[in-house]
Amino acid sequence: MKIYQVERTLWSTNRIPQLKNLPLLVVKERGGARSVAVDAVGCVPGDWVICVSGSGSRAATGDKDYPTDLTIVGIIDVWEEDG
Amino acid sequence: MKIYQVERTLWSTNRIPQLKNLPLLVVKERGGARSVAVDAVGCVPGDWVICVSGSGSRAATGDKDYPTDLTIVGIIDVWEEDG
Amino acid sequence: MKIYQVERTLWSTNRIPQLKNLPLLVVKERGGARSVAVDAVGCVPGDWVICVSGSGSRAATGDKDYPTDLTIVGIIDVWEEDG
Amino acid sequence: MKIYQVERTLWSTNRIPQLKNLPLLVVKERGGARSVAVDAVGCVPGDWVICVSGSGSRAATGDKDYPTDLTIVGIIDVWEEDG
Amino acid sequence: MKIYQVERTLWSTNRIPQLKNLPLLVVKERGGARSVAVDAVGCVPGDWVICVSGSGSRAATGDKDYPTDLTIVGIIDVWEEDG
Repeated sequence: MKIYQVERTLWSTNRIPQLKNLPLLVVKERGGARSVAVDAVGCVPGDWVICVSGSGSRAATGDKDYPTDLTIVGIIDVWEEDG
Repeated sequence: MKIYQVERTLWSTNRIPQLKNLPLLVVKERGGARSVAVDAVGCVPGDWVICVSGSGSRAATGDKDYPTDLTIVGIIDVWEEDG
Repeated sequence: MKIYQVERTLWSTNRIPQLKNLPLLVVKERGGARSVAVDAVGCVPGDWVICVSGSGSRAATGDKDYPTDLTIVGIIDVWEEDG
Repeated sequence: MKIYQVERTLWSTNRIPQLKNLPLLVVKERGGARSVAVDAVGCVPGDWVICVSGSGSRAATGDKDYPTDLTIVGIIDVWEEDG
Repeated sequence: MKIYQVERTLWSTNRIPQLKNLPLLVVKERGGARSVAVDAVGCVPGDWVICVSGSGSRAATGDKDYPTDLTIVGIIDVWEEDG
């Protein structure tokens, strides 16, 4: 898993029905590009979170057919961004 | 998922039959290389879109045996390219 | 999917039986390293092709248990390499 | 598989129930970014370990539905970090 | 698939039982970092080999539940390292 920081919610009205109404969040790896993750926990912007990628991200949503490749599975209690 | 911008349609007459007649689009990540994505939504060039990779991209086409590794699953309502 | 150019056939006499007699081709992404892809279409050196990676590459061979991670699924009609 | 060095335990109280009580460890590839791995062996900080990624990391936990993408599967007997 | 050169055997006494007694080899991509691959062919140090990654690497071991993400599937007959 990788550690990301939540930036904001991403709005996409025109999307495939399989995505249902789970929130899509823009997340950012330290020094990395932005990604979009499905939120299975309930996060707010600024949270440091653990994201699962690959086929494990589908299992994390509780629906193996959910079309994701990145899912937030936990909020980190304390994270000091290393400089 | 990652955010891409749609460039154009890719034509490939000589291809395996499992690809069926779903459109293949050339998409470009900001500052990244071009990729080819299956369009499950209906996009036009210039759209900023969300793409699912890996095994989730097959689920997104509605056919788990579809041989893809990148599928467009949503058009972003508003996307300000960060400079 | 990614776009590659076919370089040449790769010979490997000593290999696991599951690879069968499908041709293995050395392909090259523009500016990227060489990879080895299974050819499900029938290509010649110089062709610009679409390759599927991950679990979709196995579905593309028509045998879900085929041990590949990169399969050529189509030849591009016209491709102008961008300089 | 890749070789990582264990740094420390990662605490995440607010997480999805599927993660159960398996320990999550912060691991670091030489010269690479930090990742988070599920520990299926029993490691202490400083250990050099072998991690499996992708769908194989789920099989390594003994529960195919475990939502991980990186699992520690072995401790290396002797590892001289190459300089 | 990618092309690697075999360096040496990796010893890991303390490992999960699912890894069984298949040999683990340290392999190196040209100019890339070291990885660890399961040997399904029978290689010696110095051999140039083809490795399958992802879920295909599990199929290559003949046991779909084998927890690997990189498996050696063939030895290359002739490989001239390009300079």
